Formats: sequence, C-alpha cells, structure tokens
Amino acid sequence: MKVEIKEDERIDDLEYKNLKIIQNKNNFCFGIDSVLLSDFAKEIKKNSTVLDLGTGNGIVAILLAGKTEAKKIVGIEIQEDVAEMAQRSVKMNNLEDRIEIINENIKKLKNIFGKGTIDSIVTNPPYKKDNTGSKNINKNKLISRHEVECNLEDVIKVTAEMLKEKGSMYMVHRPDRLVDIIDLLRKYKLEPKEIKLVYPTKIKEPNLLLIKAVKKARPFLKMDKPLFVYDEKGNYTKEILKIYNKEEK
Amino acid sequence: MKVEIKEDERIDDLEYKNLKIIQNKNNFCFGIDSVLLSDFAKEIKKNSTVLDLGTGNGIVAILLAGKTEAKKIVGIEIQEDVAEMAQRSVKMNNLEDRIEIINENIKKLKNIFGKGTIDSIVTNPPYKKDNTGSKNINKNKLISRHEVECNLEDVIKVTAEMLKEKGSMYMVHRPDRLVDIIDLLRKYKLEPKEIKLVYPTKIKEPNLLLIKAVKKARPFLKMDKPLFVYDEKGNYTKEILKIYNKEEK
Repeated sequence: MKVEIKEDERIDDLEYKNLKIIQNKNNFCFGIDSVLLSDFAKEIKKNSTVLDLGTGNGIVAILLAGKTEAKKIVGIEIQEDVAEMAQRSVKMNNLEDRIEIINENIKKLKNIFGKGTIDSIVTNPPYKKDNTGSKNINKNKLISRHEVECNLEDVIKVTAEMLKEKGSMYMVHRPDRLVDIIDLLRKYKLEPKEIKLVYPTKIKEPNLLLIKAVKKARPFLKMDKPLFVYDEKGNYTKEILKIYNKEEK
Repeated sequence: MKVEIKEDERIDDLEYKNLKIIQNKNNFCFGIDSVLLSDFAKEIKKNSTVLDLGTGNGIVAILLAGKTEAKKIVGIEIQEDVAEMAQRSVKMNNLEDRIEIINENIKKLKNIFGKGTIDSIVTNPPYKKDNTGSKNINKNKLISRHEVECNLEDVIKVTAEMLKEKGSMYMVHRPDRLVDIIDLLRKYKLEPKEIKLVYPTKIKEPNLLLIKAVKKARPFLKMDKPLFVYDEKGNYTKEILKIYNKEEK
C-alpha cells in the first residue's frame, strides 16, 4: 500500500520477506539490536498477543510479524510523531490486521488491556540512565536513548503487570546493565531463563545482551553460545547473515 | 621441604614457579576452574589478607601465593582429612609463612577473625544444589561438589560479613547459577563489578563463570572478553596456555 513519506524521511528495505520501514533521517534509526531482538523472540507462539514496549519506528513489531505467527502485535510508543510514522510503516507493509500502533505511555497500558492478559512482551528500551552520558539535543533521540520518559524498572514493572502467568518477555540491552536487569526481574517475579551475549568479534567484550524471562517460572538459566557479529576479516559471520536472511558470499 | 605422602595420594607439579600439590586420587582433584580463579584474582593487592572459603586441597591458596604479593592467605576447609592434606602441601612448598590452613566451618569464621577485617575473599564453592543431580558416594567428593555443608547463600553471607568495606570477592561457579549469584550478592551489598565467561570452544555454551564483587561499591558491571579453552583443532588456546604459564607450541 502506498503511504505518504515526509521530506526528512526515507524508506529502508528490511530485506526480509519484502518488509520495509519508514525512518526519520534525523532521529533514532534502527540498528542490529532490533534485528537480533526480533530473531531472539521468534519462538513466540502462533496466535499470541504480543506487546512491543517502546516500539519506536515499529521495526521490531514489523520483523516479528514476518518471523512469527503471532495474531496481534501491539507497538506502544510515547512520541506522537514517531508513533504516526510507525503507523505508516505498518500500512505500507499491509500489516494493519496484525500490527496496531498505540501512542501512549507504557505506564497507562493497564487501562487499555486488562492486567495479566498478554502472552509475550518484547522491548528494546532506552539504554542510558537518565543521569549518565552526553544527552542528544534532538528530543526524539533523547527519549529513545535515555531513561527520561521511562526507566528500566518501569519497563519491567509494566511487563510483570501485563503478562499472563508463564508469559514470556524478550529484551535487548547493554551488558553493563545485567545486574540491574536480573535484580529487577526477580523483584517483579519474572524469572530470567535465557541469556545470549553478542560480541562484536571473538576478541572483544560483549556489547549487547539478549534476555528472556518468564513470569513466575522456576529458576533455571540457560546461557547461550556466544554470538559474534564480525569474523577476523571484518565480514559478517555466518550466524549474522542467517539472521539477516542472507547467504554467505 | 619433604613431607609425608599417604598411599592413596600423589604429588602433582603445578608447573608454576615450581609449586606442587598433594591430591588424594579418590577425592576431588583440582581442575581448570581453580587455575582460572587464581588467575582472575591475581590483581589482589600487595600485603592483603585473603580468605579462601572451601580451600579443599589448597590449590587456589597455593597458586595465589605464587601469583600475588598477598601477605597472608587463609584457606578454610571443613573436611579434616582434606585440610590436613592441604597443610602438607603448604609445608612442601615452604609457604607456611604466607598460607594458613584452618579446619573449620566457614560459618564460624567471625569467631576467629573480626568481622569486616579481610581485604579479599576467593572461593570455588560446591556447584550443585543439595537437591539436584546424582550424588557421589564418596563423602569427600559429596561435600566438595554438593551444597550439603554450605550453600551459595552461606558463602556470600560469610563473604559480606568478613570483608572490609570496598573489599573484593572472586568466585568461580557455573553459568546456570548466575541469576542466584547476582540476586544474593545484591542482597548482601556485594556489588558485581566484573564477569568473565569461559567457553569450552567458540561454538559452545559457557561452562564456567568468574565473577568479582566489591563490598558496598557503586553499581557498574564490566563484562569481559570471552575466554575460550580450546581452539578449532582441540588444542589449548593462547590465552589458556598463558594462564598455565606455558608457551604456545
């Protein structure tokens, strides 16, 4: 379906099942973290209802629509202009029957859906603590990257409220927040069940963390094989090419 | 110094600064975890007082005496016969001025040393929960491997009691206990500051976890580069050979 594209926007091909996305050139554009998160969450079951907390331009919701048979994926975005752009991407991909974009603060979700009604939640929350690092001047980037509108605890608290018992959450974050993440998940009875660390290369420190938690599950953590992004020659590894749905050259 | 060796014992060369250890062939013999733990803790400062909780045959205490300039390393071992054997290894290495072996339950340590008096603590605690897995019939192996005499919470609680403020603890454990470890460390105000994952090869799940925590430190976690034990050909990697103080062939 043809949709309007604004002057400071561009359309990017997701190179996956012909999916496309509209991005604002000046704002936060999607990165490998969104692609890895949607791949990590691809076990989400048929006919599930899924929330994407802080959907941004809708990248994770759109990729999940391609990778899973979830019945309904609802992307929540607090920024009105960003939510409106995500809505156009949904329309462009003819995914309006499966993806809904809601412009709302995640803290208000319990007024829209009932508590304990959601099968799975995915989230790529702001990585930076509100009081750390240099803040971007662009307000959109600030909200996407820093915990100004909602912090890690808000995201985890809302997840615990909204998930059904044994419902699953999938999050991507920075490894340096692992301790806070685990501490908060346990606090809200979301048991960490699987962690995958993403290393730029096999001689570098990990720079992304994928974590799955299940509401009120019994404790047992699976630590996955390492995922390396680049090989020794600086090319994408086989594993990454597979996630991007490309063959090795 | 020459010491008595019993019939079911053997002397192993640690191939590090001419250090040796006595091991009982029927009991728990040291493995790569002890070697990696002593390497991970080698930053322990000059003139420190160090406790090794559950020292077993004394391997970590003896290696640390070689790798650091700690003034005093005290190995605590609940099993009388194992503690006695560790004591002979200390004597054999002429390390009696720097290493003391105490046959005691770690829960009684506060009666021997004052609370909050220790600079650093190292520990390679039993990995298995008391209620899990097949238990070894040999009583020594049972106590070394299963949480029958003390569990993870006991080890962490004692560590928190005995360390000075800003004192450091270094632990080796299994990755599947990461969530419990982080949860308990935070509970007892020991902040996790560094985690190193050990992978058998670069296509396998990690099987050991090294973690450093500092008493009452500010939160910030450093996730280390991955440590691989074997390369694609099944040989030790350069990093492991370096830790074992050997040159690459």
